[in-house]
Amino acid sequence: MSDLIKANERLDDLGRGLSIIQDPGKFCFGMDAVLLSEFVRGQEGEKILDMGTGNGILPILLSAKTKASHLVGLEIQPESADLAQRSVAYNHLEEKIKIVTGDMGDAANLFGASSFDIVTSNPPYMIGGHGLLNPDDAKCIARHEVKMTLEDLIRETAKVLKPNGRCYYVHRPFRLVEIFCLMHAYGIEPKRMRMVYPFADREPNMVLIEGFRGGRPRLSVEKPLVIYESENVYTPEVRRMYEPDGQ
Amino acid sequence: MSDLIKANERLDDLGRGLSIIQDPGKFCFGMDAVLLSEFVRGQEGEKILDMGTGNGILPILLSAKTKASHLVGLEIQPESADLAQRSVAYNHLEEKIKIVTGDMGDAANLFGASSFDIVTSNPPYMIGGHGLLNPDDAKCIARHEVKMTLEDLIRETAKVLKPNGRCYYVHRPFRLVEIFCLMHAYGIEPKRMRMVYPFADREPNMVLIEGFRGGRPRLSVEKPLVIYESENVYTPEVRRMYEPDGQ
Repeated sequence: MSDLIKANERLDDLGRGLSIIQDPGKFCFGMDAVLLSEFVRGQEGEKILDMGTGNGILPILLSAKTKASHLVGLEIQPESADLAQRSVAYNHLEEKIKIVTGDMGDAANLFGASSFDIVTSNPPYMIGGHGLLNPDDAKCIARHEVKMTLEDLIRETAKVLKPNGRCYYVHRPFRLVEIFCLMHAYGIEPKRMRMVYPFADREPNMVLIEGFRGGRPRLSVEKPLVIYESENVYTPEVRRMYEPDGQ
Repeated sequence: MSDLIKANERLDDLGRGLSIIQDPGKFCFGMDAVLLSEFVRGQEGEKILDMGTGNGILPILLSAKTKASHLVGLEIQPESADLAQRSVAYNHLEEKIKIVTGDMGDAANLFGASSFDIVTSNPPYMIGGHGLLNPDDAKCIARHEVKMTLEDLIRETAKVLKPNGRCYYVHRPFRLVEIFCLMHAYGIEPKRMRMVYPFADREPNMVLIEGFRGGRPRLSVEKPLVIYESENVYTPEVRRMYEPDGQ
């Protein structure tokens, strides 16, 4: 198996018998991916597309946390897609997860319209790429909207989702107005939201959003998701997410 | 003074030497008005319009909590406007607060465009008035969008606010998407938001929103505002709001 892992890469344990290959020089998955995978409500036999999958963390986690029959990870950076592909192989998930190298702005052309039950994304959070020192840098592409915009993501989500299909995004709260207005404009109604607060008395640093293609307006805002109960100590809810046989 | 208070009405103490006349048979002010008055950031000499002022609770609280020079409460129901007027007189605030009977959908005609620094509103939360037993009932008008819609409120807010003026709304989280999209569409950018949770581990039941006319998109989401630390016991933050010399 170790021929799947290159020098400078490492193998991280995800619990549930799953592992992921990561390159510390590139964007490594963070808590946002774990929180998003917990926020997804999947049903048996559904097809899931992850837009901008990076090292494939979301499809790999969702293969265990949902009963989806078929998961696709779309990634524009060939090196990240290669990493993701090797993690899929390492976990013997080739039958279930397909990694595709391509632009998320092209998703409907690649996969066809109305082809997925669920779209997930942990997209770049920062606006634009102006003034960046190295806009070709892999970490930069994962963090800034260099290769895509929020509107590209939402427009393509609306195209590839089946009617009544759902999307799940994790993003930064400071962009919530844009996210809501774009989703609404493209016919994906935000139906469920949860704010993620690092501490109970701090500003939120993430927001989880569920949208329904063609849904009627009515947002359900959930109880706060608090990460730490004290310095370096996760709350019980977050501890459960990281338990090997969690959920 | 007691000739200002009719039979079936009562006088409630607001702290800071202020009182309000309420009719228990009508809509009495609740915590939402108090939270909204605390959320407003006013500067000396500003002009404030409260849309749908009811018994005048917001202008009366804001007269103490801000250094506004001039406050106007607009109310469509003549009986509520009369109650508000008498509370203004009881508090000797006639020089500062003016109560106007009229429709908030008509605000720009009544007061002129770009005439206020701040607009506040604790509008009806519920959509439409279809199927209501008594759509002329005062409580019903205060709670349901019988006489106005959210769009009327936001459109008129945009008209009467000066450029760079601010608005402050309290509403229900389930309508957050509509609120954001309408504000954005009418050129009032949501800039600050705070979710109000009855308990730290419960869904929020109110949301406080600040918008800037002509502001650039970037939302600041504040730490959670939690009302109760245990059954019937306010959190320290809420206790401070109700202290006589609070703020």
